[in-house]
Formats: sequence, structure tokens, C-alpha cells
Amino acid sequence: MSAKDKFHEVVKLALEKDGWTITDDPLYITVGTVQMRIDLGAEKLLAAEKDGEKIAVEIKSFLKASAITDFHVALGQFLNYRTGLREKDPERKLYLAVDIITYNDFFILPFTQLQIQEYKLKLVIYDTDTEEIVRWIS
Amino acid sequence: MSAKDKFHEVVKLALEKDGWTITDDPLYITVGTVQMRIDLGAEKLLAAEKDGEKIAVEIKSFLKASAITDFHVALGQFLNYRTGLREKDPERKLYLAVDIITYNDFFILPFTQLQIQEYKLKLVIYDTDTEEIVRWIS
Repeated sequence: MSAKDKFHEVVKLALEKDGWTITDDPLYITVGTVQMRIDLGAEKLLAAEKDGEKIAVEIKSFLKASAITDFHVALGQFLNYRTGLREKDPERKLYLAVDIITYNDFFILPFTQLQIQEYKLKLVIYDTDTEEIVRWIS
Repeated sequence: MSAKDKFHEVVKLALEKDGWTITDDPLYITVGTVQMRIDLGAEKLLAAEKDGEKIAVEIKSFLKASAITDFHVALGQFLNYRTGLREKDPERKLYLAVDIITYNDFFILPFTQLQIQEYKLKLVIYDTDTEEIVRWIS
């Protein structure tokens, strides 16, 4: 299994442990002639609500030598997918899934924090060892 | 010469024909420990101004099978570089260089136009045949 696929499986498992049901793997959204492919769609049914909470999750493995190169792609994907979802599936919230090591190495840097604030990125941090969600950042 | 390098040379030549002096190839910006590499820096000296006009240009060749995949990268790079420049070289304006064929195929689509407006992307459109700048979009 490729490293990328391994991260994908870990995030699926971690979300399921957190009470989410994976509904789409991948989740496609199409705006006009532009088709986009988000890694996962998931839903959590809450007793108090008629409709469940819906999320889309883009999983980044940050395997490149330079984290900023991976972050260019992650930021672009996030903002394109968020606009796509706003047009086609506005109830669904988009999260970028990042492993805790990458988060602590790169996402806490002042530059990255500046971009997270400026572009209102939502993150879900996971641990590849315990295969659990560590933190949701909205 | 790779297709990517060819586009790079075409844009340099087209900018020079348009009166720009290439000052950086590439242009590096560093924010904290994050180093970014923008394809070109250029300057145009205008008689009426004491200081010249300064730009940074990121050249996208859109060689991938799926234009949206290239656009994810282009959008992420643009927004990261723009924040980097705002922090470190605020007088310099950032442009995304796109060839006219890619512009007419993909950038005029409603989704792409929506993102250009939302994220205030500046574009410089060039023609690979005439090796000239066709249009500046700010």
C-alpha cells in the first residue's frame, strides 16, 4: 500500500472511531464542466437533529521534501473545493486532514498560521499511531 | 528543453518585449523559516516615477491532463506568494502568467472566473506563438 493510501485508510478509520459514517470515498462535486474529487465524504447522525452533520475531508500526507510545496496544493484544493461545495452542497463543511507530526512541524509556523487565519481553513488533526482524531480546528 | 522551461523562456521574452527588465530568475522570498520560490521578478522603470514598478510572475503551463489539478497548485502558490510578498516586499505585485489557449479553455469557465474574483487573482496572458503579452487582468 502506498504511503498516500495508508494515510487515507488511517483517516477513514479515525473518523469512524469518532462516530462518523463514511458516505463517499471519494466525493465528487461538479460545477459547470469542472469536476472535482474530494477524498472523503462523511456524516454523523446526532439524536437531537433531524438531519445529520455532513463533512468533506481532503487528506494531505505532506510526503514531499518541502512542506510548502505540499501546502500550495493543499491550500488550492481547499479553496476550490470549498467554493464547489458552497455552490453544490452548501450544508457540507470542508476539512483538511493533517497528521499530528506535520501539524507540529509545519502548521504551527507563523506563516502557515497566517494563511489558516486569512483563508479560514478548517483542520482535522489525526495520529497515525493511535489511528485516532486528535483535534478539530474550525 | 522541457515544455515547462519553454513556457518560462517565452514569458521572459514577452515581458522584455513589453518593456520589463527581468531582475530575478527565480525570485526567492522567505517568511520565518518558510522559503518560497517565485518564477520571475521584473521591474519597469517609468520616466514619471522615481521608483520603478515591480512585479513577481508565477508561470503556469497547465500541462496536466486535468486543468483543475493544475489550477489547485496555481491558486495555492498565488495566495501563499502574495502573503509572502505582502510581508517581505509589499510594493511588488504578483501575477499568474497563463498562455492564451489555457486562458480561453479554462480560465473563462464560470467556476474559474468565480475563484479569480473571490481571490482577486491578477493574470498576465501571453501568446506562445508571437511570444508577446496579450493582456493584463488586474
